[in-house]
Amino acid sequence: MGKKLRIGIIGVGGMGSGHAMGIHSGTGNTIWSTQIDYVPPFPGEMTSNLPDYLELAGVYDINPARNEWAINHGISVFENYDAMLADPTVDAILIATPNHLHKDMAISAMRAGKHVLCEKPVMISSADMLDVMAVSKETGKVFYPRQNREWDEDYLIVKKIYDEKLIGNVFNIKCRIMGSRGIPGDWRGVKEYGGGMMLDWGVHIIDRIVKMIPEKITNLFCHFTYITNPECDDGFQLHLTFANGVTVNLEVGTCHFVNEPLWCVYGDKGSAMINNWNLDGKLVRLISWDDKDTMPILAGAGLTKTMAPRDGGESVEEFELPRFDFDRNALYRNFVETCNGEAEQIVSQEHALRVLRIMEACFESSETGKAIAFEA
Amino acid sequence: MGKKLRIGIIGVGGMGSGHAMGIHSGTGNTIWSTQIDYVPPFPGEMTSNLPDYLELAGVYDINPARNEWAINHGISVFENYDAMLADPTVDAILIATPNHLHKDMAISAMRAGKHVLCEKPVMISSADMLDVMAVSKETGKVFYPRQNREWDEDYLIVKKIYDEKLIGNVFNIKCRIMGSRGIPGDWRGVKEYGGGMMLDWGVHIIDRIVKMIPEKITNLFCHFTYITNPECDDGFQLHLTFANGVTVNLEVGTCHFVNEPLWCVYGDKGSAMINNWNLDGKLVRLISWDDKDTMPILAGAGLTKTMAPRDGGESVEEFELPRFDFDRNALYRNFVETCNGEAEQIVSQEHALRVLRIMEACFESSETGKAIAFEA
Repeated sequence: MGKKLRIGIIGVGGMGSGHAMGIHSGTGNTIWSTQIDYVPPFPGEMTSNLPDYLELAGVYDINPARNEWAINHGISVFENYDAMLADPTVDAILIATPNHLHKDMAISAMRAGKHVLCEKPVMISSADMLDVMAVSKETGKVFYPRQNREWDEDYLIVKKIYDEKLIGNVFNIKCRIMGSRGIPGDWRGVKEYGGGMMLDWGVHIIDRIVKMIPEKITNLFCHFTYITNPECDDGFQLHLTFANGVTVNLEVGTCHFVNEPLWCVYGDKGSAMINNWNLDGKLVRLISWDDKDTMPILAGAGLTKTMAPRDGGESVEEFELPRFDFDRNALYRNFVETCNGEAEQIVSQEHALRVLRIMEACFESSETGKAIAFEA
Repeated sequence: MGKKLRIGIIGVGGMGSGHAMGIHSGTGNTIWSTQIDYVPPFPGEMTSNLPDYLELAGVYDINPARNEWAINHGISVFENYDAMLADPTVDAILIATPNHLHKDMAISAMRAGKHVLCEKPVMISSADMLDVMAVSKETGKVFYPRQNREWDEDYLIVKKIYDEKLIGNVFNIKCRIMGSRGIPGDWRGVKEYGGGMMLDWGVHIIDRIVKMIPEKITNLFCHFTYITNPECDDGFQLHLTFANGVTVNLEVGTCHFVNEPLWCVYGDKGSAMINNWNLDGKLVRLISWDDKDTMPILAGAGLTKTMAPRDGGESVEEFELPRFDFDRNALYRNFVETCNGEAEQIVSQEHALRVLRIMEACFESSETGKAIAFEA
């Protein structure tokens, strides 16, 4: 690998502090935060050794308490953002400020000759993204969207099932992210700061699904909820139809005191389910479609054979979900390799732009009540 | 109660045989069928005694084997449908033939002076329904849609939660009926006979939900599947927005080898879930919204407090689902009382017409890919 990159972090809130400790500790594990002081290294053997290619130059936050937290953890603190940008030993900036600040900070950084790794949602609008992409092109500096959840194991399981047709041709996929605590605190509840759950979790689950299914989206219908916050969406239900006929239901909720399965995947030869973040679940594959003999079950006032489960029958086979080891620092690594001209961006600017446009179509759909023939 | 009604049944297939044995045995339990010979009486004390108000005059089917089955079970068989209609001791006809035959048979029956109890979907189209309603008005004969699932216990549980605000104001309801055996056999897989799952299960779950939520539907988006049958819908996903802001997701699937929860109900003060037909489930009520202190959980590559479950916390309270005893013969009874001029139809013609129109809007939505501002 080429040059080891020195990175400065602007913003030391939830994500910024995670990055700071992840890089400072050398594990890359960003689940550190200002509220948690110890996080074990990643399990598995595939994770690349972060200190080989990335080191922390320092951080800065407008909140003095957060800078103090950094100092107490042995992390250098810059005097301000300008000082970080002016430091010639800083190769790159990681932006972890509220969403509405990303654009100006990214442009300043690239104009100061720094590469940029930018927290998601990278921009509040696709128009802003186009401006930032223009500056990236003009300056020759990398602008890298930190949309990191295509390396989540739950997604990798679903992607394997989809790609390898483990349950035949998939026709419907559901992914649901459900909590019961409303929108996370402070600026995420404020519209002008880029708050709301679509920009928070929506970006991730849309990002991944449109990467998994390469076809265009032909139709999109979205409904937002405003149960716990009248200003910012605290959840949504999104229906996507792809050009290959596959439909996807994405849902985020923050007023949900019971949990539906995290993922459901339906194919013409079976189904798979991931129940929760622990990745409990199963894959059920059909052996014989014609073996329909079963005792009907009582379903309310009626008897149903159609809806009777196949439990205990010999017409289906049940499997454990496939599991993975993988490089959990893959995004950091690809960022560094991209900056060094050694690799293509795995999370491309064009991809992030498409995700922003899909999210804009979601808002349009929810506000108008109409389905959007998005890329048809 | 007034006059005891004598009823003839036309069609001795899955539902016709159930009705025949339910009435013949006096239990009213229609889960009998030509494949099952003994069904216990309903549990509970609330169920009215069917023999007090309804008796079976006889049955008829164009399939001789089914008439033979009836005779073997001590049930009278008419020579044909005309003979049934011509019998002056027959007060009412129960129509349990394939869906495309309902209209002509219902009109013939009413013109012959018989009341009609008609299996669902009562008609294939709202236009047919208007014709039948006109004949009902003209002849003064009852035409009663046998949309019987508003007396299902799972629905009664959800209705109680909704009506009594047991989890605060409900904002979203999901009901999913999932099987793995495709569309049930014979005519239900043929479009011109009124096949497909929307007309089979859709009618029930739409029927109930629009009865529970009295407001108009302002928006409707529906997507059908044709996985196991290219001609008839073998499932669908339906989004409804009501004028009070409540959204409902109804789903039927017949290529689903894992089961999502049967019902999920989300309110601003809690959630409820019915997992399956055994009515396993729970109701979770929020005690303190502000008590958000919790340890974050690991969710893929990131840490989330927002999506961390409240398990074991003291900020929520968990309850068993409310259960009910009720008159499981309520529809038969109301039909008889209506024929005797003693009651209003609980399942009115106008209601069935509305359900048919909603289903037509579903087909329009799925075919065009558009949302329908249905009754807005």
